[in-house]
Amino acid sequence: MEKIGVIGAGSFGTALSQTISNNVKNVFLYSRRKEICETIIKSGYNSEYYPNTKLNKNIIPTNNLKDLKNCSAIFICVPSAGFRKILKKLKEIGVNNEVILVTTAKGIEYPSLNTMGNIIKEYFDIEYVALSGPNFASEIMLDLASICNIASKNLKNSIKIKNVLKTDKFKIEIIDDVIGLEFCGVIKNINAIAYGICEGMEINENARYAILNRGFNDTKNIILNIGGLKSTVDKYCGFGDIVLTSTSKESRNHTLGMLYGQRIIVDEKSSGIVFEGKNSIKAIKAVCDKYKINSVIVDFVYDVIIKKNLPKLAFKELWNKL
Amino acid sequence: MEKIGVIGAGSFGTALSQTISNNVKNVFLYSRRKEICETIIKSGYNSEYYPNTKLNKNIIPTNNLKDLKNCSAIFICVPSAGFRKILKKLKEIGVNNEVILVTTAKGIEYPSLNTMGNIIKEYFDIEYVALSGPNFASEIMLDLASICNIASKNLKNSIKIKNVLKTDKFKIEIIDDVIGLEFCGVIKNINAIAYGICEGMEINENARYAILNRGFNDTKNIILNIGGLKSTVDKYCGFGDIVLTSTSKESRNHTLGMLYGQRIIVDEKSSGIVFEGKNSIKAIKAVCDKYKINSVIVDFVYDVIIKKNLPKLAFKELWNKL
Repeated sequence: MEKIGVIGAGSFGTALSQTISNNVKNVFLYSRRKEICETIIKSGYNSEYYPNTKLNKNIIPTNNLKDLKNCSAIFICVPSAGFRKILKKLKEIGVNNEVILVTTAKGIEYPSLNTMGNIIKEYFDIEYVALSGPNFASEIMLDLASICNIASKNLKNSIKIKNVLKTDKFKIEIIDDVIGLEFCGVIKNINAIAYGICEGMEINENARYAILNRGFNDTKNIILNIGGLKSTVDKYCGFGDIVLTSTSKESRNHTLGMLYGQRIIVDEKSSGIVFEGKNSIKAIKAVCDKYKINSVIVDFVYDVIIKKNLPKLAFKELWNKL
Repeated sequence: MEKIGVIGAGSFGTALSQTISNNVKNVFLYSRRKEICETIIKSGYNSEYYPNTKLNKNIIPTNNLKDLKNCSAIFICVPSAGFRKILKKLKEIGVNNEVILVTTAKGIEYPSLNTMGNIIKEYFDIEYVALSGPNFASEIMLDLASICNIASKNLKNSIKIKNVLKTDKFKIEIIDDVIGLEFCGVIKNINAIAYGICEGMEINENARYAILNRGFNDTKNIILNIGGLKSTVDKYCGFGDIVLTSTSKESRNHTLGMLYGQRIIVDEKSSGIVFEGKNSIKAIKAVCDKYKINSVIVDFVYDVIIKKNLPKLAFKELWNKL
């Protein structure tokens, strides 16, 4: 492929652009913020996210979505809250069904309960590719050893995207359970928040890992009930990402949980940070209600974050249910 | 039950004695070291392991195995290297087939490849109970929230042992896959060493969690091939214990791996510490060879710890195989 588009010049979009630039002629990296494009053009750095890593020269920053019109594939790396808006715009500028769209966003639209893939299908009659894995973007940016899963109902699309992404260090494993992969990416944040709440309260390790274990099995049960495969949760997009996001100090949703466990309220607006997991709690709780799935971990996180119940009482209730 | 025996006054045996003492009249805690018994009798503390937690008064320390002869159940909490010797002695002192024997040891006899349960069966015609879970002994000692799995071919034995162990905080989940549970306890140490080696080398997190994920799936494959159930590896004795032992700083086998990753050789004799995982590597490698199972994680650990290959080269080889 000659021309690939990436929408979203945040940490993940920028890192993927860098990887992809090894395999294709040009990467068009779209940012809705003009100043980011200007900085990249001037300095070669996306200094807000990666002040120490120069972008490869064939990455072309742009503030104009139309520049992505003739790309053979477009990666959509924006938070789920802005996902539908991007699709609308892509349709408006005349992107057609020849394109391969790739979603890396980890969220469920609320209250529609659409996955990001479902939203793509509303605008384009194509088999999209979803990407998820235990991946800190900063490590992909540096081409450190990483693995992710991709899934599509069209294997040819998966293979094309694999070829665009892979390097010696960055491995891509194709699976075929699209809905399972998409839900793994969402539910892992809920697991990370649950683990974080427990850590914030200084709950002992035996209990924390028991909770994480239960979350893993609740994830399998949810994914089975919504039409995915349990075995998907054993894969990098499942086990790897759940454990990474829950136990690593670098994970934002883990931190969010820790703060709630310590009863510290975050000013998200002033922080300018998107806690994808927090947006997902209501959505996943609604999915559980809709499919009549019982998940004690989803309930625990919902009780603490949404209902603002006392974390220690919520934990006691959870422990009694195990 | 009135009288329960625990063999091994190390960290796990002492902690289980404390828990059990809540549920039965007397716990006979056997230590082969006279001075430990004497300290407990004099002070009420097993000061070598728990200098700050007093043992309950109905725990009776003894240096004479014969005192355990009429116990209704005996927990064997010694390292696997000393396991057979204990069984021989129990037979010699006239323990009969009325007893329920419980193994908490995590090892495979080498080169026979017997599980600890297999060794019990050589001496006693009974359905033993095996116990395993994501449990730091020190937390059980303090009756902090913990869960473990137990398994036996005789459900009645499992139920009896559950009743002896459980408290409000310490939950016991009965499963029926005895061999699966026993192997989980052994292979988790190999996973912890693998993760530790990577951490010692400062391999990036995306890669470490990918390795942990692969180890989890290799564990499933090994357990399936030796006659256990894949689903057992999703349970507390599997997922929970693998992730706890691999990622917690408190785990001894994780530490062992870290040291090898940094190319620091431990003087085990002088340290007086048993690295169960190290003893298990040859055994699990032999199990893989015997059943023609391919495990890249077992090979990696075997290459670094037993063959003493350079960890960085071993990692490169492993990554190429993923």
